[in-house]
Amino acid sequence: MKKEKNSTLKIIPLGGLEAIGMNITAFEYGDSIIVVDCGVAFPEDDMLGVDLVVPDITYLQDNLDRVKGFFITHGHEDHIGALPYVLLEINVPIYSTKLTNGLIEHKLEEHNLLSKTKRKVVKYGQHINLGQFRVEFIKTNHSIQDAAALAIYSPAGIVVHTGDFKVDYTPVFGDAIDLPRFGEIGKKGVLALMADSTNAERPGFTMSEKTVGRTFDQIFSEHEKNRIFVATFASNVDRVQQIINTAYKYGRKVGVEGRSMVNIISTASELGYIKIPDNTLMDIDQLKNYPDEKTVLITTGSQGESMAALSRMASGLHKKISIKPNDTIVLSSHPIPGNEKSVSHIINELSMQGAEVIFQDTHVSGHACQEELKLIYSLVRPKYCIPVHGEYKHRMAQAKIAQQLGYDKDHILMLNSGDVLEISDEKAEVVDTVSAGNVYVDGLGIGDVGNIVIRDRQKLSEDGIIIVVLTLESGSAQLLAGPDIVSRGFVYVRESEDLMEEARSVLANKMEMLGDKHVTDWGKIKSELRDSLSEFVWKKTKRRPMIIPIIMEV
Amino acid sequence: MKKEKNSTLKIIPLGGLEAIGMNITAFEYGDSIIVVDCGVAFPEDDMLGVDLVVPDITYLQDNLDRVKGFFITHGHEDHIGALPYVLLEINVPIYSTKLTNGLIEHKLEEHNLLSKTKRKVVKYGQHINLGQFRVEFIKTNHSIQDAAALAIYSPAGIVVHTGDFKVDYTPVFGDAIDLPRFGEIGKKGVLALMADSTNAERPGFTMSEKTVGRTFDQIFSEHEKNRIFVATFASNVDRVQQIINTAYKYGRKVGVEGRSMVNIISTASELGYIKIPDNTLMDIDQLKNYPDEKTVLITTGSQGESMAALSRMASGLHKKISIKPNDTIVLSSHPIPGNEKSVSHIINELSMQGAEVIFQDTHVSGHACQEELKLIYSLVRPKYCIPVHGEYKHRMAQAKIAQQLGYDKDHILMLNSGDVLEISDEKAEVVDTVSAGNVYVDGLGIGDVGNIVIRDRQKLSEDGIIIVVLTLESGSAQLLAGPDIVSRGFVYVRESEDLMEEARSVLANKMEMLGDKHVTDWGKIKSELRDSLSEFVWKKTKRRPMIIPIIMEV
Repeated sequence: MKKEKNSTLKIIPLGGLEAIGMNITAFEYGDSIIVVDCGVAFPEDDMLGVDLVVPDITYLQDNLDRVKGFFITHGHEDHIGALPYVLLEINVPIYSTKLTNGLIEHKLEEHNLLSKTKRKVVKYGQHINLGQFRVEFIKTNHSIQDAAALAIYSPAGIVVHTGDFKVDYTPVFGDAIDLPRFGEIGKKGVLALMADSTNAERPGFTMSEKTVGRTFDQIFSEHEKNRIFVATFASNVDRVQQIINTAYKYGRKVGVEGRSMVNIISTASELGYIKIPDNTLMDIDQLKNYPDEKTVLITTGSQGESMAALSRMASGLHKKISIKPNDTIVLSSHPIPGNEKSVSHIINELSMQGAEVIFQDTHVSGHACQEELKLIYSLVRPKYCIPVHGEYKHRMAQAKIAQQLGYDKDHILMLNSGDVLEISDEKAEVVDTVSAGNVYVDGLGIGDVGNIVIRDRQKLSEDGIIIVVLTLESGSAQLLAGPDIVSRGFVYVRESEDLMEEARSVLANKMEMLGDKHVTDWGKIKSELRDSLSEFVWKKTKRRPMIIPIIMEV
Repeated sequence: MKKEKNSTLKIIPLGGLEAIGMNITAFEYGDSIIVVDCGVAFPEDDMLGVDLVVPDITYLQDNLDRVKGFFITHGHEDHIGALPYVLLEINVPIYSTKLTNGLIEHKLEEHNLLSKTKRKVVKYGQHINLGQFRVEFIKTNHSIQDAAALAIYSPAGIVVHTGDFKVDYTPVFGDAIDLPRFGEIGKKGVLALMADSTNAERPGFTMSEKTVGRTFDQIFSEHEKNRIFVATFASNVDRVQQIINTAYKYGRKVGVEGRSMVNIISTASELGYIKIPDNTLMDIDQLKNYPDEKTVLITTGSQGESMAALSRMASGLHKKISIKPNDTIVLSSHPIPGNEKSVSHIINELSMQGAEVIFQDTHVSGHACQEELKLIYSLVRPKYCIPVHGEYKHRMAQAKIAQQLGYDKDHILMLNSGDVLEISDEKAEVVDTVSAGNVYVDGLGIGDVGNIVIRDRQKLSEDGIIIVVLTLESGSAQLLAGPDIVSRGFVYVRESEDLMEEARSVLANKMEMLGDKHVTDWGKIKSELRDSLSEFVWKKTKRRPMIIPIIMEV
């Protein structure tokens, strides 16, 4: 691609910079827009009732004719999860590596979108020409196979986007990260590096995935007589491979439980990303036919997710498997921030059943620590540094690493989602902002639950609701029935009959007063009732339930 | 106290064994009951709208005439916080050390209970005779001063209760833990040891509080030009003392912010537990009159609590203090499990204002790790081991330590709250269970919010509420008005008018159908309306809002 002088590229992150998750970034040059990743975020505690969070893609919809395609770095939910929602609006081809494509296809199939989309499997080293862009896929390592960094060639220069990555010199499957290619591209001159900030606060180097395999070997050798369960992330196929390897070595049959685990193992083995020795897998129904010391169960639920297989086993709700004393349960993951309590909860439940729970040295991260980031910076030697993937503090930690490496502050760009960055050899600046942020998915609704609805749910969750109903005669506003009170989530009504009775008289008195003044404005009647009840309830209970007056007209 | 042969003591924990918090244990011998600690727990995420959790004291109320007094091990909320609620029912004397008593008095004053209760300040080494018991206070170390272990002498034998403790050979204030006394009592022969399990999963030794002082010195010397804020737990008076010492050494004035911080510093300095050099403290209004490098602010909010001073500063809501670029903010605490996200949130907010946030090596725990537990066991050499203070997994970790030290499984007692343990030289067994568990405090209500109310709040928080109102003619059940629909927390109504309109016709159709069949049973009308609306809403949205039909009769 020929480099044009004074030409500028636009980089527009639409997510992924306020939290870990929901990664999506648009690159725009002239009449071409390409989009890197299209992920979901999982709802924060205060997003009550929300199932998923997807990005606001208004900007892409407004520029629909220019959007050429999606480039997906790897198959994790925070990079592919929003595709089924976004493709409904923007149906353009999706480029990704083989396993990533397999996982995308599985997802699109579930949403009945498979036949309606174009997908293309890309090999490492392959270049895709699309509009004004050329995109090269570069081999990296991560906690899922087939992860790629992207070199995005545009007339304004080259941008390297790492995706989620780590440096694993001894990966379980396939090759180590293609460090020489990062160096080669670095030598061409790179305009900007967008690198993964997830672990930028952590000093040192992330350990190789292979070290976990050694821990498994040790655990299996020390628990020869016990039934062993290993819970991990379904998407970590290399981890699953290592569990299977160790099980095979110790002559154990392997059962697999949890819908996502079953799905991913089947996709990965179809595509050749996992090798399962013959006669190693068994149906979990057969578990009882083997002695304890001859079985291993691989399961979902390592984060203590209440609906996952391990939680159901721990609380005795699983149909086929229950925990027995002397079972050995390996949690092969670290708690994701926010899940600490639920992980503690499941450890307690498993321990109470007499199981031994092991969670030390059973996991390594899939993200680069500080020394790995320094390595990538030193190979790519970008003009500008754009830390991505992470909360502000993670990205700031990467910014500090860049400063240590000698970068000026004005060559380190701390962006927000929605920023329109114009970048060229001469300068880089945020010139505009576009709509960006969280769109809530709740059941079938996408975006019909917004901040007002969430605020109402928060208020309802705090102190419940009191509904006041009354029937008035049309015109005269004469009280025909009520005011009656119904409450939910406020007090235990049977034990608070006096309070509710008093509340009713407060309302009845207020209605009498209003009647004497010939008030016929229903808005006023409602607000007077709401205010007097609210005051009464606060005085008596120091609570502020939502109060809804409803007037029926006859 | 003379030991009587074959006599048995009852130990009845009423809290503190399912989670960290809400510690309270009854000891019963003949006509005497004494209670050790009386704490609160903070609500879990699923206890919506609950302010505090206090113990169920039905058993004590049922045996009111036998309850002789409370013995409080130290002044933390999970040991004293429930006193104002429990004293309303059980007004007996409270025994504690000087600072603990000061904090209790402050708390009782806030609840207008100070003049109504008897309190007695106890010195280390002092013995209190109460009914059939004698109780000795033994010096320990913890993250608050004046912490005590208790030796409880009864005719059935001696029980040693550690309270929360650590072994600090070089404490900031006062003496190290009285290890010789533990040994001396051990030599007399101890029936049972009830020891703190909080850190029983952690190997090694907890570091001395003094090590944090050295970190402060280093941070102050490396940030000579910056304004410094230090956030920590208000109750950690030694920590506050060390911040003041370092500030004084570096010639900085100290401001204090946060209600609980101001209160505790005032109580502690009144009672002589903190020494503040003259002219060191300043009012926070004066902060602006000093150059940045001459000031330190000690504040609450190190856990990211949204209402605490530091959060208000970080989000620009504090009336007097705002964060500036180049401020140095030291978080001198670790996130308590469950607070990880809110701590991350505040670090992000502070960093976005340009402040540097430091949280490494700025905290040590107040609880004993594994080697300290082994030390106490080896001094006390109890017949029975009763791990307390912690979730099951923490107590199990202590049980494993006891096993390593040679104890049989049947001499290690894993109790649940409400268990009645009968213990004597001959045997120890749970003979009964009594009512125990969580009582929710919400506003002014104690216990009026129970599981049904909480479940309603959970349902409301998930998908909101739809209220269906209609007016029927008395007797004939003829529809006079409605059915009308009001919803909250369900969908954003303005964007879902079609859905709501359709829902109304579903209900209208159902009413017509019911009218044709001359249904006059209102219960049936309500359930038919609820079912048909619920089915419609699920089909359209895959949500399950609470549905409340209300019928007015005219």
